[in-house]
Amino acid sequence: MGIVVQKYGGSSVADTEKIRNVARRIARTFKKGNQVVAVVSAMGDTTDDLIALAKQINAKPEPREMDLLLSTGEIVSSTLLAMALHALGHDSIALSGAQAGISTDSSFSRARITGIEPRRIVKELDRGNIVIVAGFQGLTKESEIATLGRGGSDTTAVALAIGLKAQRCEIYTDVEGIYTADPRIVPEARKLDEIGYEEMLEMATSGARVMHHRSVELGQVYDMPILVASSMVDKPGTIIHGGEKMENRNKVSGIAHDMDVAKITVTGVPDRPGVAAAIFMPLAKAGVSVDTIVQNASANNITDLTFTIIRNDMPAAMEIIRSVAKEIGAKEYTSDSKLGKVSIIGTGMQNTPGYAAKMFQTLFEHNINIQLITTSEIRITCIIAEDRVKDAVKALHKAFELDKG
Amino acid sequence: MGIVVQKYGGSSVADTEKIRNVARRIARTFKKGNQVVAVVSAMGDTTDDLIALAKQINAKPEPREMDLLLSTGEIVSSTLLAMALHALGHDSIALSGAQAGISTDSSFSRARITGIEPRRIVKELDRGNIVIVAGFQGLTKESEIATLGRGGSDTTAVALAIGLKAQRCEIYTDVEGIYTADPRIVPEARKLDEIGYEEMLEMATSGARVMHHRSVELGQVYDMPILVASSMVDKPGTIIHGGEKMENRNKVSGIAHDMDVAKITVTGVPDRPGVAAAIFMPLAKAGVSVDTIVQNASANNITDLTFTIIRNDMPAAMEIIRSVAKEIGAKEYTSDSKLGKVSIIGTGMQNTPGYAAKMFQTLFEHNINIQLITTSEIRITCIIAEDRVKDAVKALHKAFELDKG
Repeated sequence: MGIVVQKYGGSSVADTEKIRNVARRIARTFKKGNQVVAVVSAMGDTTDDLIALAKQINAKPEPREMDLLLSTGEIVSSTLLAMALHALGHDSIALSGAQAGISTDSSFSRARITGIEPRRIVKELDRGNIVIVAGFQGLTKESEIATLGRGGSDTTAVALAIGLKAQRCEIYTDVEGIYTADPRIVPEARKLDEIGYEEMLEMATSGARVMHHRSVELGQVYDMPILVASSMVDKPGTIIHGGEKMENRNKVSGIAHDMDVAKITVTGVPDRPGVAAAIFMPLAKAGVSVDTIVQNASANNITDLTFTIIRNDMPAAMEIIRSVAKEIGAKEYTSDSKLGKVSIIGTGMQNTPGYAAKMFQTLFEHNINIQLITTSEIRITCIIAEDRVKDAVKALHKAFELDKG
Repeated sequence: MGIVVQKYGGSSVADTEKIRNVARRIARTFKKGNQVVAVVSAMGDTTDDLIALAKQINAKPEPREMDLLLSTGEIVSSTLLAMALHALGHDSIALSGAQAGISTDSSFSRARITGIEPRRIVKELDRGNIVIVAGFQGLTKESEIATLGRGGSDTTAVALAIGLKAQRCEIYTDVEGIYTADPRIVPEARKLDEIGYEEMLEMATSGARVMHHRSVELGQVYDMPILVASSMVDKPGTIIHGGEKMENRNKVSGIAHDMDVAKITVTGVPDRPGVAAAIFMPLAKAGVSVDTIVQNASANNITDLTFTIIRNDMPAAMEIIRSVAKEIGAKEYTSDSKLGKVSIIGTGMQNTPGYAAKMFQTLFEHNINIQLITTSEIRITCIIAEDRVKDAVKALHKAFELDKG
């Protein structure tokens, strides 16, 4: 017997019938002799609805008030889930993030968890309660409610699992696990039984939407096994862990893609210290998140600099680049909003040069032009035209024989 | 310059346009040089909607979870109101009941405020903020969220006004003030410019729905003047206070009525000590709130006992009386669910016997049968048939010349 932390996303608790279904699943885990802590997101579109309501009143709502507002969504779903467990005859208590002992920093709308004080949860578990925790939120030192931003409930669940020394953290969602590629694009895509933290991290940052990279990072640092499985069907899912098996696999485990890529190129940039800072500091200050940065080899102390961002940040970024380009004496700047990226991810990639060659060859054979290439130890990413991303994913999935397991 | 506490009810903040309107009203008070604390209820039917949602999941939800759930309604409206003030260019901060320093006991769903720690509010006011407080809620010693039950936001506002030593507490609602009778029944009913705490208390407990008696009691104990006025139109409203003028007025100030009265009579009750306790203890335990109790003069140590309750409590009360009647050896019991009550309220009533006589005579002239009579220092109440209540209110309003001011 041990502690199991489970997390149920917004689509799993979208209405009262689904909440009752989740309660039955939790009860099953409890009846097997586990102590259960369940973290929930807000019901269905609640968060989006609250944001829309706020924007009707104020186009730029204060982040502090916005967080206090949004935190109510998870409190509603957590109390309803506790009530559903009571209706099944189980003792259960719903806790807000603050009551659950979750401390965060004061970066409203994208706060980071700074600590877990598990006393209250442990007390409730020892009383025989199934503990339901409102995800996505915590309490700052100044007693303010802060939310954790995208993927916040996953992060809540992993952090609680670590703080409670749980056996493992189970993330229940609307997919059955981690796939070798998006099954909507590649029908032959295979569900992985297991995947390493690093590969999962690369999948998450390369566009796979199943889990946010922050929660995977957290699991990796504290070596907390994370199961990703469906909240609708009873199938084994994918376990993310750092076991030995991973390290030695030496093969491509999946294809990730992202349709939302925009590119800005600044040409004729004087190649001197401080130029990169002059470009990227104001972008960071404006909250524009830069993904890939590529600087071409310099000729005659003049270089070209290309970087990618998400499409929504394009107007803000272009406004900054317009004034910065003049300032640093760049020749010109161009942009392209209709890009995407495709990545192959796997261990031992850097030691096996054949992977990169095979990737480029495959894209070439399908007449897909590569605009940018970046690599990490376990990932190779190509930026390509958005309308060729699906073809690229399909072709690479086949070329690396991922359908064959 | 001083602190003004304002309270806006659910119908005043029912949608984003109404919230903007409330923000403009608050801003006007602020611009006159006041420090403003505004307490808000949940938007429109939010509380009822949340209750309905909970009941879909659990017919008898735990009060603790219910309170945590319901507390979100006022947090939503308070954050939106702060955002609306930001949009008008004012500094404003929304605080949950817990953040505002409101402590309560642990009686979930009908908690009582046990203390106000105003430090945070004072700090925010001194920073130039308009402070918006989520009404209806507070924090227990065990860090649980508890709600205050019916009229809870009024109580929050009056308690904060007292804790902050405010100039006065202003309750903004969908009526223009306190009337001599319900204007929907008596079109000639007059709005009172002022009314004493005691008379207002009798009005509230006798069926006038404008304010809950708990908040009036609180105002009376700490002598906090309470203004009741409309949130829609700019009219002076009614001020509730304990000024001298009140004491000496010696006249009827209003007619209150209540359509929701049920009566149970137990006959042939042995007139010995302990009988009343045997009847009313189990009723109290079952949460049945008993209003009027009348015991007839005893003959041969046998007496009749009649009491009134609200209609909804009838099934629970009858079940209890069935077994208690047997236990105490009562002869029989009867019930009547179709009753109402009408009250005349005013200072000096007990010293002026003419009032009671005039009331009974008026009802007699209109052929309205009186079933029960109860009196207090400043009130005379008659229980009559429900379908005659409106006629009684009209007749009494005319007889006591309340239309003439």
